[in-house]
Amino acid sequence: MRVLILSADGFEDSELLCPMYRLKEAGYQVDIAAPEWGRIKGKRGYTVTANLALDDVQPDGFRLLLLPGGKVAPQTLRSIPQVQDIVSAFVDKGRPVAAICHGPQILLSAGVLVGRRATCYRGVVRELEAAGVLYEDSEVVVDGNIITSRQPSDIPAFMGEVIRALARLLKSTRGYEDIAGD
Amino acid sequence: MRVLILSADGFEDSELLCPMYRLKEAGYQVDIAAPEWGRIKGKRGYTVTANLALDDVQPDGFRLLLLPGGKVAPQTLRSIPQVQDIVSAFVDKGRPVAAICHGPQILLSAGVLVGRRATCYRGVVRELEAAGVLYEDSEVVVDGNIITSRQPSDIPAFMGEVIRALARLLKSTRGYEDIAGD
Repeated sequence: MRVLILSADGFEDSELLCPMYRLKEAGYQVDIAAPEWGRIKGKRGYTVTANLALDDVQPDGFRLLLLPGGKVAPQTLRSIPQVQDIVSAFVDKGRPVAAICHGPQILLSAGVLVGRRATCYRGVVRELEAAGVLYEDSEVVVDGNIITSRQPSDIPAFMGEVIRALARLLKSTRGYEDIAGD
Repeated sequence: MRVLILSADGFEDSELLCPMYRLKEAGYQVDIAAPEWGRIKGKRGYTVTANLALDDVQPDGFRLLLLPGGKVAPQTLRSIPQVQDIVSAFVDKGRPVAAICHGPQILLSAGVLVGRRATCYRGVVRELEAAGVLYEDSEVVVDGNIITSRQPSDIPAFMGEVIRALARLLKSTRGYEDIAGD
């Protein structure tokens, strides 16, 4: 059972590492995609290896898309058409998409947040509201298959909802049969 | 339900943050103790607030003791008598004690590892073996209520065993009745 984390240099270290470890603990294979294959470096200096470049990502093979924050990484990713296509593919298939901190900016640029309830880092609130997102100041907001949180201290609530969404998907026969190469 | 993380300046950031968030996700109140009350800083610059000084720690109130690594933090803690007393109190009561990376050095100095199976950071192996610990090169080693791991990449296996140990304690009436102020 594979899940995808999509990030770039300048990620918020704890927002990538803690969800990655939590998903592995729950038995998922965690793939990491970045603009290019290879090591990406967080704000605090942790590195992880992106085993996939954007071109290699086949959304059908994954049960979840998770977007860590960090001011720089989402800024790099949000305007890349392949990133927007990947996000849309997950949303269209009804697969869970989870974004934290500045991560929701990527969802915004992919056009999947308008008219939906979501939260984000405080510095991003104005941008979300201006685009017609129904912003809520909560540790986690779940609207359908879109899960959003504000900051690292929300990780417990964020990952609780991520794990629950994956469990729901596992119970749904349709979800299970749809997933390629599982 | 309270659990205790014991650390100091120079902790390995991911080994404190990821377990802390995971325990909170599972519904536990996480207290952090350090030599003095107040903020402690990790190797990578993350800070957390120690809400307890060593003098304030009453081991009876906690279901678990978790010792993150980082070369500096365990080095600071291991020779402090109050730290050794806290570790012994958890072990004597049969409460789970979990240590990762350099964290097992604290268990060693408290005298609770001799003759037991354990793992640790590779730079610490020799010291453990010299003291009569049955070292194993595994992502996690569980010997009774003592859970040890080697490094950050072991966090998924480490926290899986920590959560299982807490669940076992919750099922045990004896364990439950023994815990003060829960």
